[in-house]
Amino acid sequence: MIDFEYYTPTKVFFGRDKENMIGDIIKSYGFKNILLHYGMGSIKKNGLYDRVVKSLKDNDINFIELPGVEANPKLSLVRKGVKLVKENNIDFVLAVGGGSVLDSTKSICDSARTDIDPWEFQIKTKTPNVKKRVPFGAILTISAAGSEMSDSCVITNDETLEKRGCSNEAHRPLFTIENPELTYSVNKFQTGCGIVDIMMHTMERYYSVNDETELTDNIALGLLKSVVKAGRVVIDNPNDYNARADLMWASSLSHNGLTGSGKKYFMPVHQIEHEVSGMFDRVAHGAGLSVLFPAWAKYVYKSDIERFKRFALEVMDVENKGSDEEIAFNGIIALEEFYKSIGMPTRLSELDIYEESFKDLAYNYTFKGTREIPDRVKIGYDEALAILELAK
Amino acid sequence: MIDFEYYTPTKVFFGRDKENMIGDIIKSYGFKNILLHYGMGSIKKNGLYDRVVKSLKDNDINFIELPGVEANPKLSLVRKGVKLVKENNIDFVLAVGGGSVLDSTKSICDSARTDIDPWEFQIKTKTPNVKKRVPFGAILTISAAGSEMSDSCVITNDETLEKRGCSNEAHRPLFTIENPELTYSVNKFQTGCGIVDIMMHTMERYYSVNDETELTDNIALGLLKSVVKAGRVVIDNPNDYNARADLMWASSLSHNGLTGSGKKYFMPVHQIEHEVSGMFDRVAHGAGLSVLFPAWAKYVYKSDIERFKRFALEVMDVENKGSDEEIAFNGIIALEEFYKSIGMPTRLSELDIYEESFKDLAYNYTFKGTREIPDRVKIGYDEALAILELAK
Repeated sequence: MIDFEYYTPTKVFFGRDKENMIGDIIKSYGFKNILLHYGMGSIKKNGLYDRVVKSLKDNDINFIELPGVEANPKLSLVRKGVKLVKENNIDFVLAVGGGSVLDSTKSICDSARTDIDPWEFQIKTKTPNVKKRVPFGAILTISAAGSEMSDSCVITNDETLEKRGCSNEAHRPLFTIENPELTYSVNKFQTGCGIVDIMMHTMERYYSVNDETELTDNIALGLLKSVVKAGRVVIDNPNDYNARADLMWASSLSHNGLTGSGKKYFMPVHQIEHEVSGMFDRVAHGAGLSVLFPAWAKYVYKSDIERFKRFALEVMDVENKGSDEEIAFNGIIALEEFYKSIGMPTRLSELDIYEESFKDLAYNYTFKGTREIPDRVKIGYDEALAILELAK
Repeated sequence: MIDFEYYTPTKVFFGRDKENMIGDIIKSYGFKNILLHYGMGSIKKNGLYDRVVKSLKDNDINFIELPGVEANPKLSLVRKGVKLVKENNIDFVLAVGGGSVLDSTKSICDSARTDIDPWEFQIKTKTPNVKKRVPFGAILTISAAGSEMSDSCVITNDETLEKRGCSNEAHRPLFTIENPELTYSVNKFQTGCGIVDIMMHTMERYYSVNDETELTDNIALGLLKSVVKAGRVVIDNPNDYNARADLMWASSLSHNGLTGSGKKYFMPVHQIEHEVSGMFDRVAHGAGLSVLFPAWAKYVYKSDIERFKRFALEVMDVENKGSDEEIAFNGIIALEEFYKSIGMPTRLSELDIYEESFKDLAYNYTFKGTREIPDRVKIGYDEALAILELAK
């Protein structure tokens, strides 16, 4: 086990109708002028917007709005948010949405009390914590990215099509409201993307290089097992409260540090996927991961058959029959089958991405030849290319 | 799953030599005059005291000391601490020790900026958060109580021999330093007590009344499994870093809320044990729990055989043979055997507690006839008595 810091100060209000407390919660912190940041308007259709606005007004909280966050949130909108915060004396940003709205919010809050352009924070991922930042909180509407408790923030530069992640202690929200019922209306595809994303946050930690971290691994495997179980339930019964609740809570725990405690991890599949959805904006992050993880796993599983075997037996319920290597491999196939069963793609061709793009993707992944990831199996240009080939 | 709030703001610095950062950490928060609170002097024998003092002096932090915290920390010493904090302009209390030192610290910090006696906070367990409190942090020296991340604080009134717990958001430390190497010198008995205590914090949540909480239960079972595994290792190899690390991290996660998320829990075995170690000061908390939990389990297991069976199979590796009821029961027996194997008692007679005390203990447990615990099986006076009989 390697040394680690664990810091998850985000207060989670979990359960039915909690979004109606939003005004009271913001008031309890003493904020008065807020920016309400959200996506493409689904919260207006399902009534959430009205409930939030009512609670804000009931508590005399002034607000202005910035809608329009898209999947793979864009730097241009972040810059617009920074301007709004500066010009309107905003003391708090409320994200109402999923990972994209949250990440857009984080990026706004990073730079809105500085003279530094938000992209600077994204590319200097190892900068010290932002001291002068705008506080923010969230009402979560989809179980997926884990941004609601994580220190991570991923933004796409819509001029250069680069997508960059930046992890920073200051990126953990002050609070998050999690009402599983708000996810009942998330459609099958988005639900599937979320399930993949949640699993990936834990799997990329579980499969990292590490020495013994039995406790962390047991927690990871237990979490993955419940996500697979809940995933099977919600695909048929989208209004199953307990299954939706398990997915929502797993979303937060998968990316808040818990499932990686004491481990060194690099998330190579995420890094390759960022290039895919950065170049092909139509690709949902979860769909990209669903295609790429099994390919990565097939490329590397022989480096730690025991670990892949545990996953196969404990999470995917693969039959304990055959050689260890066969069981380990069957676990990857079982995961692919699970992804298919919840409607997710497992080949790049399903995303209309073909061989002619592979070299550019692999090159972008290496930050134009300047990095490789020193994971259990080093992933540089050649390896990224091989993984893309396996996923074609 | 029931609604819940999750709030674990304590920052954990986990790993080797982290205690040498203590002065820098305290300085980074801006504290200048601290109270150094610790136990019976073992930290002076093993050199920890000297390292802490050096780091404080290197950072120009003034300190006064209050040693003398005993197991089952006493109200009289807490009152002494309150007086010291008030008279010396103390702005931070540093606990160096285990659960007893931490709880003594929490109680001091509750009342040192008020005119309210600390016992008032203990008996009014449902009071609002203490707004005016003294901040505190910890260097943990034993894996057991979980107080290093929990909202709980248990104090014994040495005038009345009552022991009372008080849970309050303000009881979560600002930070905790966790270096597993500091626990190498914890002797076999205290290590065993700690293992029992860690398991109990998770088991009392796992076995609570609840509807479906699959994710929380999987995390709980995974944690318990690793504690049993690490427990078997450290009893023979007290200097095994990874096993000591798993126990230390499990100590924190067992009692920070994670393993009870979405569950309603009452911790009846803890409540009975508090009376036992309250009346018999010689009884270590972990030893009391080691005796009482199997007795409680035998009394109630038929109320949810499926849940006890999962524990038997997934944590205790009981053979999957016989009726569900038999497997469930065999899990309790396997746990008793595990406790014995790590040197822990499983009968009250081993603690020199005999039938003549049972009625007083049961009566004290009911707060002199004024409470019963509405758990999966209601535990009032008669039931507490029956459990004590099963443990004799």
